Parts: sequence; structure tokens; C-alpha cells
Amino acid sequence: MPRYRLTLEYDGWGYNGFQAQTDQPTVQGAIERAITAFCGETVRIAAAGRTDTGVHATGQVIGVDLDKPWPAKTVMNALNAHMVGEAVSVLDCVEADPEWHARFSATGRRYLYRILNRPGRPALDRGRVWHLKKPLDADAMHAAAQALVGLHDFTTFRDVNCQSKSPEKTLDVAGVSRVGEEVHLVFEARSFLHRQVRSMTGTLAEVGQGRWAVDEVAAALAAKDRAACGPVAPSDGLYLTGVSY
Amino acid sequence: MPRYRLTLEYDGWGYNGFQAQTDQPTVQGAIERAITAFCGETVRIAAAGRTDTGVHATGQVIGVDLDKPWPAKTVMNALNAHMVGEAVSVLDCVEADPEWHARFSATGRRYLYRILNRPGRPALDRGRVWHLKKPLDADAMHAAAQALVGLHDFTTFRDVNCQSKSPEKTLDVAGVSRVGEEVHLVFEARSFLHRQVRSMTGTLAEVGQGRWAVDEVAAALAAKDRAACGPVAPSDGLYLTGVSY
Repeated sequence: MPRYRLTLEYDGWGYNGFQAQTDQPTVQGAIERAITAFCGETVRIAAAGRTDTGVHATGQVIGVDLDKPWPAKTVMNALNAHMVGEAVSVLDCVEADPEWHARFSATGRRYLYRILNRPGRPALDRGRVWHLKKPLDADAMHAAAQALVGLHDFTTFRDVNCQSKSPEKTLDVAGVSRVGEEVHLVFEARSFLHRQVRSMTGTLAEVGQGRWAVDEVAAALAAKDRAACGPVAPSDGLYLTGVSY
Repeated sequence: MPRYRLTLEYDGWGYNGFQAQTDQPTVQGAIERAITAFCGETVRIAAAGRTDTGVHATGQVIGVDLDKPWPAKTVMNALNAHMVGEAVSVLDCVEADPEWHARFSATGRRYLYRILNRPGRPALDRGRVWHLKKPLDADAMHAAAQALVGLHDFTTFRDVNCQSKSPEKTLDVAGVSRVGEEVHLVFEARSFLHRQVRSMTGTLAEVGQGRWAVDEVAAALAAKDRAACGPVAPSDGLYLTGVSY
């Protein structure tokens, strides 16, 4: 039984998140339907990250087991052909080792958060950026973000419904930079807590807007208290950009 | 009667082009409705470029005359507030000289054409790029494009329904470059013929895919014959990015 590793891009706007649900459009549902349409097999796929409603991906990775072997390129082209009406695209497909698992073998996950920072609201990127009118101090956001790097108890930046056993995670990278009219936040870690990236982003945006001092982010982290978190950023600007194995 | 100069961004995907039509959604219709909703006045706006169905803009410029004076910032914020459901956004609004005209005062127009050049089809940029799978030789496209720069009879690259009096135009800039997974074509001229940018782009893409030699573009131009044009590129990848006055 061959195992395939697929890299996906999707626009999360029209989907109730990644994970399959009855009677709701999901990314997983779109792919599993395309697989059945392509080869007749009914499968359950594994994903590196189960993104929330409205969250996008440019580098989500999934694993698919098929009974019948096909050339990897055939799988990619067939799934893309069966998803023409979907905002989901297969960017790459390779045969994977049977020991490899999309979720459990992952050693790193990378997220990008895009803030559109200008007076006029987005027309071309509606639903794909968070729009903040007030000019952001990206340098102050970057400085504040460094307090989050390393092994910490991230209870402050964890959704109340998070199902992780422990609030302790190691954040490897937290970078904030201005890119034209946008401010980009990049985060890398082996794994993240539920809504951790959006919680950190919303808090750092408070610093960027001058409502929080730089060192208040470190204090919020040290509080280990969800109530110390800033407003949670919307899903619109969040992208799963890559997974390391 | 104050005149305002507004800069617009829009996603052309859901509109039957810029120009107002009865019973069809257009960019002009969306703006004129928002103006009426804001101040009660029924106006006809003037635009630098009347973009086709599906063509986008990041820097369209329009002129609006209002009977009652308002601060320019109020006009911008009010129109944006009345277009929340539209894929149209006002990026800038300033008071203009009564002699200034959005269309007739323009001395230069800039267009960007985005080709997504990778095996996987676009998910996030559906309708906003032209997808070509075969690797494009952007350098060859750029070399071929230089034959189009200058004052020429552009009959080859002119739609049969073009209403310009003359097929002669001066193309100031034609640049092709690779930007990550995309190939970008940039064109600048005082004005363009109908479908000129998409006709030039589709022809240059033939060069990029190795189906035309570089010097065949110069020969096509010299032919002054619409039949010598390559396939016309789709509207999806075309953006009006700026207007000079």
C-alpha cells in the first residue's frame, strides 16, 4: 500500500476549517472527495496541521494511503483536476516512506500572519489579511516578540478549548517585519497550542499600535493567565506556510 | 463644486468590467451607488482606464464632482463604509483642481500582468493570476518585449473592436521578470489600445514557452496584422497599477 506525501495550498475563507465535518465544507472533505472521484477509494487523510475556519495554507502537508499504486505525478494532476471548483490545490506529491506520518513525523511548523496596514480596506485581499489602519511600529513588535522565543508555559496565549496535554512549548522563531503596505509575522515551532499564533499576533499588534509597551508582552507571558492575553487576531491573515520533517 | 481625485483598488472577478451597465454589476456602478448612499447626490464618475471584465486594479484613478464640499478624508471613509460588501476599496482621496480630469489629464498608465508559473494551479489567487504550468524563460520574454518599446503601429496587438482612431501608440516600458513562482510583465504608456496588454502578454508567453523565437515578436509587430498576434492572455492576471498626471 503506497503512501503519498502531498503539499497543499488553500484559501480557508470558504471552508469550516481543515478537519472533516458532516454537512460542512472542509478542506479535508474536498480532498477526500477528490480522491474517491479519482480512484474510487474511500480514504482518511492525515495532516500536519488542522487549521481553523478561515485559516489559509501555502504549505500544508498531508499523507494519503492508497490501495492501488499510481505515479505520484498522476495523483497530483488527478486531484487538481477533480478540485477545479475548490479553493484547494495540490502543489507537490511524492511517494513517502511507510514509516513517515504527516502529523507525527513533523519536526517543525511555520506560520505567516499578514496584517494589511494602510487606511484603505482590502479589496483584492479581502479575507486574506487582517486590516489595521493605524500605522504599526513593526520594530517594536519584533522586539516584544523576542520575549516569546524559547521554552515557555504559553497558557496566556492558549485558547480555553485547547486540548494539548501541556501548555509548555518551544517557540523557535518569532519575527516581525514590514513588507510594503503589510506587516508580516513569522512563527516557527515544533508544534503550537490552539490559537497560539493568533493570540500572540493580536497581543503584538497592541504593541505595534502603541497601546502596550514592549515589555508588557513578557509580563503577559509570565502571568500564565489567559486573561493577560491581548485581543485574538482574526483567522483572515493566518497562513500555514510549511512543515519540516 | 469641488472635484475629488480618488485612487481605487478592486478585484475585477465579480464585475462586468469598470464601465456602468444596466443590470450588470460593475465597478463604476458600485462606486456611484456608494456616493449616492453617502451624500444623496447622483453622479457620473470619470476614470483613467475603463478596465475590461475580470481585470483588476491596485491604482485606478477616478474623478468625482460633488455639489456639496466635504473633507477629502470623509469622502474616502464614507465610500469605504458604503462598499463593505464590494470588492472595491478607496485607497486615497484628495481635492483636485477643477481643470484636472481623470481620463484626459492622464499622461501615463501602468499595467502589471501576473503569470503563476508552477505545476499546481492557484488556490489562493484563483482569478487573480494566469496559470501556466510549463517553465517560462522570462529573460527571453524580456528580450522579445524590447521590440515593442517605442512608437509603433500596434494593429497586431489590437482587438478588432478597438475604437481608437489610430493604431499608433508609444510604449514606454515593457519589462518581464521572474518573481518567485510568478513571472511579472510591466507595461507603461500614455495610453493603450483595447486588449493591447493582454495581446502582447499572450504573444510573449509563446516566447516564454519556447513556441516562438525571440525575433518573431518583432516580425508580428511589423506585420501590422491582427492574425499575426499570439493567443490573447486571459483577464485574470491583469492589473491597472497606476496613472501619472
